[in-house]
Amino acid sequence: MDDQRILDMVKSPADLKLLSNEELSILAQEIREEIVTVTSRNGGHVASSLGAVEIILAVHSVLNCPHDRFVFDVGHQAYAHKLVTGRLGQFATLRRYGGMSGFPKPSESPYDSHPSGHASDSLSVALGYARARDLRGDNQKVVALIGDAALAGGMAFEALNQIGFIRTPMVIILNDNEMAISRNTGALMRHLGRMRASSQYRQVRDNLQERMEHSNEATVALLNFGRNMKESMKQFVLPRTMIYEQMGILCTAPIDGHDIAQMKETLQMVLETDGPVLMHVVTKKGAGYSPAANDPETFHGVGPYNVATGEIKKKPASAPTYTSVFGDALVREAHTDASIVAMTAAMKGGTGLAKFAEEFPSRFIDTGITEEHAVGMASGLAFGGMKPVVTLYSTFLQRAVDQLIVNNALANANVVFAIDRAGLVGDDGPTHHGVFDLVYTRMVPNMRVLTPSDEAELASALHTALTLNGPVAIRYPRGEAEGVPVPELPCVFEEGVSRVVYEPSVAVESVLDATILAFGRMVGRSVGAAKLLAGQGLQVRVVDMRWAKPLDAVAIAEAATSSRLVVTVEEGALAGGVGEGVLAELAKLESRVPAITLGIPDQFIPQGSVDVLLSSIGLDADGIASTVAERLR
Amino acid sequence: MDDQRILDMVKSPADLKLLSNEELSILAQEIREEIVTVTSRNGGHVASSLGAVEIILAVHSVLNCPHDRFVFDVGHQAYAHKLVTGRLGQFATLRRYGGMSGFPKPSESPYDSHPSGHASDSLSVALGYARARDLRGDNQKVVALIGDAALAGGMAFEALNQIGFIRTPMVIILNDNEMAISRNTGALMRHLGRMRASSQYRQVRDNLQERMEHSNEATVALLNFGRNMKESMKQFVLPRTMIYEQMGILCTAPIDGHDIAQMKETLQMVLETDGPVLMHVVTKKGAGYSPAANDPETFHGVGPYNVATGEIKKKPASAPTYTSVFGDALVREAHTDASIVAMTAAMKGGTGLAKFAEEFPSRFIDTGITEEHAVGMASGLAFGGMKPVVTLYSTFLQRAVDQLIVNNALANANVVFAIDRAGLVGDDGPTHHGVFDLVYTRMVPNMRVLTPSDEAELASALHTALTLNGPVAIRYPRGEAEGVPVPELPCVFEEGVSRVVYEPSVAVESVLDATILAFGRMVGRSVGAAKLLAGQGLQVRVVDMRWAKPLDAVAIAEAATSSRLVVTVEEGALAGGVGEGVLAELAKLESRVPAITLGIPDQFIPQGSVDVLLSSIGLDADGIASTVAERLR
Repeated sequence: MDDQRILDMVKSPADLKLLSNEELSILAQEIREEIVTVTSRNGGHVASSLGAVEIILAVHSVLNCPHDRFVFDVGHQAYAHKLVTGRLGQFATLRRYGGMSGFPKPSESPYDSHPSGHASDSLSVALGYARARDLRGDNQKVVALIGDAALAGGMAFEALNQIGFIRTPMVIILNDNEMAISRNTGALMRHLGRMRASSQYRQVRDNLQERMEHSNEATVALLNFGRNMKESMKQFVLPRTMIYEQMGILCTAPIDGHDIAQMKETLQMVLETDGPVLMHVVTKKGAGYSPAANDPETFHGVGPYNVATGEIKKKPASAPTYTSVFGDALVREAHTDASIVAMTAAMKGGTGLAKFAEEFPSRFIDTGITEEHAVGMASGLAFGGMKPVVTLYSTFLQRAVDQLIVNNALANANVVFAIDRAGLVGDDGPTHHGVFDLVYTRMVPNMRVLTPSDEAELASALHTALTLNGPVAIRYPRGEAEGVPVPELPCVFEEGVSRVVYEPSVAVESVLDATILAFGRMVGRSVGAAKLLAGQGLQVRVVDMRWAKPLDAVAIAEAATSSRLVVTVEEGALAGGVGEGVLAELAKLESRVPAITLGIPDQFIPQGSVDVLLSSIGLDADGIASTVAERLR
Repeated sequence: MDDQRILDMVKSPADLKLLSNEELSILAQEIREEIVTVTSRNGGHVASSLGAVEIILAVHSVLNCPHDRFVFDVGHQAYAHKLVTGRLGQFATLRRYGGMSGFPKPSESPYDSHPSGHASDSLSVALGYARARDLRGDNQKVVALIGDAALAGGMAFEALNQIGFIRTPMVIILNDNEMAISRNTGALMRHLGRMRASSQYRQVRDNLQERMEHSNEATVALLNFGRNMKESMKQFVLPRTMIYEQMGILCTAPIDGHDIAQMKETLQMVLETDGPVLMHVVTKKGAGYSPAANDPETFHGVGPYNVATGEIKKKPASAPTYTSVFGDALVREAHTDASIVAMTAAMKGGTGLAKFAEEFPSRFIDTGITEEHAVGMASGLAFGGMKPVVTLYSTFLQRAVDQLIVNNALANANVVFAIDRAGLVGDDGPTHHGVFDLVYTRMVPNMRVLTPSDEAELASALHTALTLNGPVAIRYPRGEAEGVPVPELPCVFEEGVSRVVYEPSVAVESVLDATILAFGRMVGRSVGAAKLLAGQGLQVRVVDMRWAKPLDAVAIAEAATSSRLVVTVEEGALAGGVGEGVLAELAKLESRVPAITLGIPDQFIPQGSVDVLLSSIGLDADGIASTVAERLR
């Protein structure tokens, strides 16, 4: 029985109620070991998940889920929640194709309250639950867990504004874990910073610090964290200095989020309150695993790593990422054009802007997790004579579609939208795939949309976008680029003009079997398909369309007249996608050539490696070739 | 010279600097008369515009625009701004086709800083201007004007959060004009309400009240407002109670926004501040025109009215509006289904929910101008067992595309999106047309999209949507419906099944000249076109597609095999629209039938009456008929 863990005996949150606080602390340690073991193999969101273990255990010890509702914000901190809600057995499949999601997912478990993934939405969802409960006349308890960065998002503020007005009972646990001052990007952060200067907060922090220092003496990376927990401050004070107090939401004094006993006690107390309460909880990102605690940024979202050393296991890269090529290209452009301003929304590293921020600190703007504001502000910068380059992930730009339309396109503002992570992103799954941007950019008048097919094209696409007036979007995928050299001097593309990238060995005058009009990363796959088809005696030309908008009408006409079949291939939603735009061009030409549009079908795509996912929907070279061959048969 | 107005002599804001405060007050009165004269003919945003006259005169007396920047939020309060920036001569064309926009519009004047129209964006745009100024090393001054309702929008909060952090000089004028407690929907409003309870605020209010009461004694509606202005409080205090103080933004005590002298003095002072300042200004909506002051809700956005009485000149309606039919139908549904919850975002009247709110107050939720939160909260309500019906204008749902995707569609939540004002809306112009919703709904997996073609169809579409699981959108236009009776008992439509609404007198076995597949309001126009074409001997069938998603593949196949031409007609953007979806179905069928997609072309559509606009883009019966006839020739 020596290796029997408490964790193995926890089948549901009800089991937690049978455990003493001491046992819960042991369980927390076991959970940390499990998280580190699995994420060291599968990758994952390590730092946040380690920081939230005790919060999650305390909440599940006090609530009766799934009758009660525990709503996560973003949800990448929810691994402990998954482990105590009957999913230990599947945890090894975390983030893998067909395996457990890295985020709460209602279809995976009744304990998951909503499909988390995008920041700042938990308070709206929780208020919805709470109002539904009120209407049902139920006694359900609702607890939301939100980090300080997500709390700065406008959507969270909108919810707080109504929560403070309606005043129906619910608990908001504010997980305050920003230790690094460099990451503070807003006044709200500074407000929390002032809270941190209070003596009460310092006491909480000192307790944490003491444990951390003690931990550093240990020789193993995975620390015996929390086992010998001290009882820290007991006082439960309601300071009137919290901004939310003025909005009608009771706020607790900051408490130690790694002290399970205090967390349980406080939570029990605030759940009795006849109104909304914000429970201010202080935690340490990466707590209990020193590599993550010492470098929470690296261990935010991370690939496989060595448990003992924390060293990241890098796959040997055959090419730089699109992101890094973009970042370097933008720095080069900024050296010759002083009007370039780089913007992001809390994704400096993820969008490759770290170098830019270092070289041009005054021309770098990180707005925090606030896409609406970032895109709106970009228009003001453009009206003021700057050339803002708004760099966001495709899935997060969904938050600012209206601002893209009204603030930028309608005014024909000189703004470049650099849309990173466009297409399938892999292990993060459906909340993070960037499959809609081609639709919501091309529907907008005045927009131009570039779809570079490799890193050389990306550098030139950026250069081209910066020469144009009016709004321009460039979309490029996550991960390694194609391994082609990036030119010293990028080109300026002619607007709406494509290029042929693969010609079959066809006799002059004869008709091609097919022309593939491909976009972005699908160009390489399409060339692969054309080569496979050549092996079957089929003559297929591949065109890199370069522009999703304006479309190259000449190339489309050429394809219609010179081929037996026109094929479009895009890494984006088919419904409303650019393939349909090509069909519209063909209809205008009164062409009767058969056409196939290939892309993301009308379903949410699961998690998994990009290659596996693309193959599963027929968007690899094999899949494209076989679809084309079948249609030509 | 007796009838010579100061207004006629003001050619640019520079002229205001030559006027005394007394003269400016006279000018304010002249501007009010001009606003009332023109809006009584053209309609417009009367109450807000009358309330902001002195603010605008004060700002333009102090700033040097267009070098300095005056940024409006929403912009429907900007009429006085238009009148003093060289546009008096065009003011009579306000909101008319080819005339002056009802909103600031950069292409109309260099004094207009951005295309205003959607709420809560001014602070982001202003911060963009301010940062651009800092980067240029300029001395430009930036002033934003925002109302208290718009300040509750998440985007404004996101901007404030960064403004308080960056602390670059700019002035935010908070126009606090919410007198009616019933319109307060958020904690922020209540916070302002507490400010209103302060003795200082009450003094400001009393001064206003005194003038209003004095005004009511007058027998004419248009009052001699502000001419005999008292100098009210002089003190310039910085109370520490304002929520924004804690975010690093200096706040003034509330001052009288109709006192030009005090406004100028205060503005001059705060512009000298080395950081951002929020200038809290109290005004009265509709000030100076008693019908608007007494009923600011009616006079928010209003059609032509009688100046003397304030009576609205109603055009004799031949049919109820889609909005009112929807509102009545929802009330009927709510009587039999206790789980229905109606939601809107500060558009109770505009979306026809007033009756619902009265009959089912606990099941009515108005979140304020917060579309992101509203759509997120809807998912929580749905998870909690309710059936939320989120009722928003098409153009404003653009603000919540991400929440529609992630919070609702991904979770397959039982939420109905009632999309009002879908299609062209008329006089408000490009910021308010609802031309993108068919694209951004149909691109999303799990969504169903209904496009009722008349008010009977709308009632049944709503009934159908409420029987379905998963997210459903219903889009319907602004204004009068078609005048058909609404059935007592609505039907349940079969999913993805269309109906033929017009059959030509064609011999059996023969091929039709064309089949028109029409959506929503375009069905009636298409029937009109088919009748015109019948007069030319052309046999055209018209199908009311009912569903934009899922499309009726059988009807499309039938059209392809039975007609020489397939025509789609939608009142939405062609790029990514449902017409392209039909083309994709035709491609799947390997059909070679020629097809035309009719809809909104790839450009922003100006203001004007809906009929004129539809006709201008060929979407009236004549236009559709001539396009079809030409193609068949």
